[in-house]
Amino acid sequence: MSRIQRDRLDTQLRGAATLSGSSVGETRADFATMMSQMPVPGGVRVEDTALGGRPALRVSPDAPTGSGTLLYLHGGSHVFGSPGTALGLTAGLVVRTGIPGISLDYRLAPEHPFPADVQDVVAAYRELLERGHAPESVAFVGDSAGGGLTIAGALAARDAGLPVPAAIVAFSSGVDATRSSETLVTKADADPLLDRAALDHWSALYVGDHDRRDPLLSPAVTADLTGLPLVLVQVGTNEILLDDARRFALRASDAEVDVVLDVTANVPHVFQSFSHVLDEAGEALDRAALFLRQRVRG
Amino acid sequence: MSRIQRDRLDTQLRGAATLSGSSVGETRADFATMMSQMPVPGGVRVEDTALGGRPALRVSPDAPTGSGTLLYLHGGSHVFGSPGTALGLTAGLVVRTGIPGISLDYRLAPEHPFPADVQDVVAAYRELLERGHAPESVAFVGDSAGGGLTIAGALAARDAGLPVPAAIVAFSSGVDATRSSETLVTKADADPLLDRAALDHWSALYVGDHDRRDPLLSPAVTADLTGLPLVLVQVGTNEILLDDARRFALRASDAEVDVVLDVTANVPHVFQSFSHVLDEAGEALDRAALFLRQRVRG
Repeated sequence: MSRIQRDRLDTQLRGAATLSGSSVGETRADFATMMSQMPVPGGVRVEDTALGGRPALRVSPDAPTGSGTLLYLHGGSHVFGSPGTALGLTAGLVVRTGIPGISLDYRLAPEHPFPADVQDVVAAYRELLERGHAPESVAFVGDSAGGGLTIAGALAARDAGLPVPAAIVAFSSGVDATRSSETLVTKADADPLLDRAALDHWSALYVGDHDRRDPLLSPAVTADLTGLPLVLVQVGTNEILLDDARRFALRASDAEVDVVLDVTANVPHVFQSFSHVLDEAGEALDRAALFLRQRVRG
Repeated sequence: MSRIQRDRLDTQLRGAATLSGSSVGETRADFATMMSQMPVPGGVRVEDTALGGRPALRVSPDAPTGSGTLLYLHGGSHVFGSPGTALGLTAGLVVRTGIPGISLDYRLAPEHPFPADVQDVVAAYRELLERGHAPESVAFVGDSAGGGLTIAGALAARDAGLPVPAAIVAFSSGVDATRSSETLVTKADADPLLDRAALDHWSALYVGDHDRRDPLLSPAVTADLTGLPLVLVQVGTNEILLDDARRFALRASDAEVDVVLDVTANVPHVFQSFSHVLDEAGEALDRAALFLRQRVRG
């Protein structure tokens, strides 16, 4: 049955409009419309809040099991997206773990290019620590560009002398701004959502004239990953970013980091969003939730 | 705390006697003695049975949740070990999943070299299917050489025209008899349990003059993995077999197989056996149990 679901989702996505080519403003609006169609599970309360000088959404479980925090970082190529566009994913994990989430409205390019968003993540985490949250009670969780930010944020926190958080969960993360992943070519036809031209377009706005080998832009290629907390990387095989995930996992294990590379075949970028039509999406979120419950000490 | 546990276990293992160098008979006895010290969790009933013409241990949960079967394949370099030596691991998974286990006493080298054990696995699985068990209700689970057998057995079943089982769980599996893994060299000092000379000694007895590139001997190198059910591979970084696991996972994902590579840093070969002294062992078994519950339809 599930193979049928995977194929059907692929067909649906290929028939849908893509985001590439439109203006920043149009893309932000289109992405918000597209993601507003994703279901948000019940069992959570959503409120506006602020953290580290940025707006945020607090996503609280009706049945909390601990006082930890999932610091959620949405996707959108560092240019679009918001806590609202990732609310289904954030709530899906909050409900499954019983751990409260805070989804950060970090600054976006082109108005605020790299490393503004990384600085926002560190500031948010620093404020949590200053409020008395233990690092063992905080996990960084994110999808796509936000998945990359979980890793860059943890590295930047470490380099700023902060203790690392308890765990990192990254869905379909972009972790190589040098674009050296082979799957950018080999998965070009298989990927129903992303293409290289769009990636290059948005990342030019984000990276500007920074060296793309900066460890915070390309942690899968150049970062010293030593000391990271355990990392769960989930990815589909129908993704041009598949090798970003695979290479990051290999490098993390070389650096003596606990790491889980969780690959689901024949599913697209951030397939966890599609739990209403794809059994594998909910199963992947269940695995992520167990991983978070094992490590986050609330 | 847990980093302390990892270091303490490493020290203990380095101080213990190794298995290399003694005769087959002595090694079988020594391994049985060593593994008899591993605790077996309560909550199971253990009985002698038979499957596919071989003796086996049935490990039944006091609180079953389904009628599926975990077909367990013990470790021991294809030369030593028995269902009894792996009873702690088998029972650990049976208790955590609520799914009954059958641990197969497959034939051992040198009396019965390759492919006798693979044939035993296929015969056992075939008998389960003939008794009316659905393939979706059976998982292959194994450690070390038995981890390799889970994969070889599933490939051999597929090639014999049988439907593949629901899932495969392989702990620290040996899946490259050509011994081309870089970590055979790079992890030689870090591995407190295995060394290349011992591996070569036992595998000579098992492989004989077969071509080591046979896909059932080296699935991480030469096998067509297409059509395998999803595979969870768990491995420690203090293992010369680390790259067997990592390369298998990459190849499986290339073949569009659902695969999870679950790496725990600074722990040894089949660290899941040490749940009494290592938190990561129980956590890894919990992750394996969730994975099995997600896929096995009893």
